[in-house]
Amino acid sequence: MADTSRRDFLATSAIASAGLLTGDVLAKPATGNHTMPKLLHHVFFWLKNPESIADREQLIAGVRSLAAIDTVRSIHVGVPASTEKREVVDNSYHVSELLGFDDVAGQDAYQVHPLHKKFVEEHQHLWSKVVVYDALEVK
Amino acid sequence: MADTSRRDFLATSAIASAGLLTGDVLAKPATGNHTMPKLLHHVFFWLKNPESIADREQLIAGVRSLAAIDTVRSIHVGVPASTEKREVVDNSYHVSELLGFDDVAGQDAYQVHPLHKKFVEEHQHLWSKVVVYDALEVK
Repeated sequence: MADTSRRDFLATSAIASAGLLTGDVLAKPATGNHTMPKLLHHVFFWLKNPESIADREQLIAGVRSLAAIDTVRSIHVGVPASTEKREVVDNSYHVSELLGFDDVAGQDAYQVHPLHKKFVEEHQHLWSKVVVYDALEVK
Repeated sequence: MADTSRRDFLATSAIASAGLLTGDVLAKPATGNHTMPKLLHHVFFWLKNPESIADREQLIAGVRSLAAIDTVRSIHVGVPASTEKREVVDNSYHVSELLGFDDVAGQDAYQVHPLHKKFVEEHQHLWSKVVVYDALEVK
């Protein structure tokens, strides 16, 4: 781990721990070392041809390529989990992409980055619907 | 950092790096040290009274208390980010909660945990709508 990265990691951990003290219980920090970036960009894709494994794999490979964009701090590529079926759970999507950024500027830079534009151009024929949620960490 | 936690962190980093090699470009790992848990549980809340700062703060404090549940590996509490307004972006929600788990079993245990039940009982009067997405990392 590079020195600067380690400092960032420790600083983020400290902020996260401090934040937990403001809850209505004195919460322990969540276990594990998965610190979260401040800005989350969560995208859900519905495929035009959900039965096509090839289409799904092509989209997943495309999403993975987005990790190379320099302002992207974390990536999680997912599919609906087989958790309990409940009315509030939307498991109708086919592929999800969670990207983490340091701030809004990082996400703005990502939107216009050539690799992101290339991803959209080459993969948009695969999906019928996209829903995006951008969430900024509450201090 | 406890030895076991550090081992988990390093193991997860190694898995994440390996996964990135399967993309259509040889992507560098995302910069920073925000490794992602395997199972993401992302919840979006719409408040009954969006103008009430007190209601919002009460919900946020309640969400933070969920970090004390032992299977929760990470937490991000957010509000809509002021990113570019686009048709596909849903910024109509008021509070978001992203919890990370090791696996589906961890999320199942969380659902029936007394602290989670207490949170729902004490805060459900605040929201008018909830949408949940559970996403399992693609290998």
